[in-house]
Amino acid sequence: MAAIEFWFSIGSTYTYVTVARLAAVEAASGIAFDWRPFNVRTIMVAQNNIPFSHKPAKAAYMWRDVARRAARHGRAPRLPAPYPIKDLALANQVALLGMGEGWGRAYVTETYRRWFDAGEDAGDLPNITASLRHAGQDPEATLVRARSAETVAALVAATEWATAAGIFGSPSFRVGSELFWGDDRLEDAIDWHRHGRLV
Amino acid sequence: MAAIEFWFSIGSTYTYVTVARLAAVEAASGIAFDWRPFNVRTIMVAQNNIPFSHKPAKAAYMWRDVARRAARHGRAPRLPAPYPIKDLALANQVALLGMGEGWGRAYVTETYRRWFDAGEDAGDLPNITASLRHAGQDPEATLVRARSAETVAALVAATEWATAAGIFGSPSFRVGSELFWGDDRLEDAIDWHRHGRLV
Repeated sequence: MAAIEFWFSIGSTYTYVTVARLAAVEAASGIAFDWRPFNVRTIMVAQNNIPFSHKPAKAAYMWRDVARRAARHGRAPRLPAPYPIKDLALANQVALLGMGEGWGRAYVTETYRRWFDAGEDAGDLPNITASLRHAGQDPEATLVRARSAETVAALVAATEWATAAGIFGSPSFRVGSELFWGDDRLEDAIDWHRHGRLV
Repeated sequence: MAAIEFWFSIGSTYTYVTVARLAAVEAASGIAFDWRPFNVRTIMVAQNNIPFSHKPAKAAYMWRDVARRAARHGRAPRLPAPYPIKDLALANQVALLGMGEGWGRAYVTETYRRWFDAGEDAGDLPNITASLRHAGQDPEATLVRARSAETVAALVAATEWATAAGIFGSPSFRVGSELFWGDDRLEDAIDWHRHGRLV
């Protein structure tokens, strides 16, 4: 049973830290996470919530904060990574397709590794193609399906569902109707799942 | 020796959680914090960084998040508190004056308690007056000094110093030249002070 919903968009920087550590968190906690891709950019633009563009102090802090927190999990990303990514919708359409077919986590983990550790834009074809191969998929055929009207509509629907649930950023965690935003709230979400409060 | 600088503005919501728990954190850690009031609104307006105004999803989340995290420290604030506060500059001019005279922490702690626990705007005179009395000060005489050109200039200078240090939000913690933003980064700041990395 998936106890905690993990809502995310490839393209979010702090989601790198979550993706880097979530398998270890799942193993240590015994809690399953349900990975739910959506399009955070659609929501941010609609809500005029633009965190880093034209905000150099905040952007500089974000990269430093990500570096410090990644190091805690044994990771040394090359920062700043390319930002914003080119085609956020396509990246998350691929992820959504993969979540339904069992190769989504492998894809997301690899595309973040390439984006942050090797400097390859997660919304551009070199990264997407290589990450699909890493996840055992044929890039050309998969990209055709990821760009299909059906997959496009599925990501829109997921994003509308997220909006209705009050989600406005990535990563977000949901425990029942309780919402937690940010990699730094992952432990709060686990507390809530176990105890119904923060401990 | 003050090992960690605690930069804050009365008027910031998450700073409530820090003010509510910092005395206990200092006692438990043995680390002294140097309380530095500044005007976060000046910086946010200059940087076009407006976190909650016209962002209902983000604002609703913020109040819920503050409530959950305050409960962890045994507090049950009446939320939402009045927001934004009326005269943020005056409230922090009073705080700055108090920090130089030894009654600043008592004032800030009381004004936050009244703002969040009793619903009294921290930038309005009923709260400011009562909090000054609680901190052992004569409200009328203190307000004259808090509004003086000297105190106004001191808060502007503190804010310029904060801006130059890359500070863009409240609360912020500085350990040497390393910046940590948010009540949720207080433990990271302590890690950095002790180990030069997050553990």
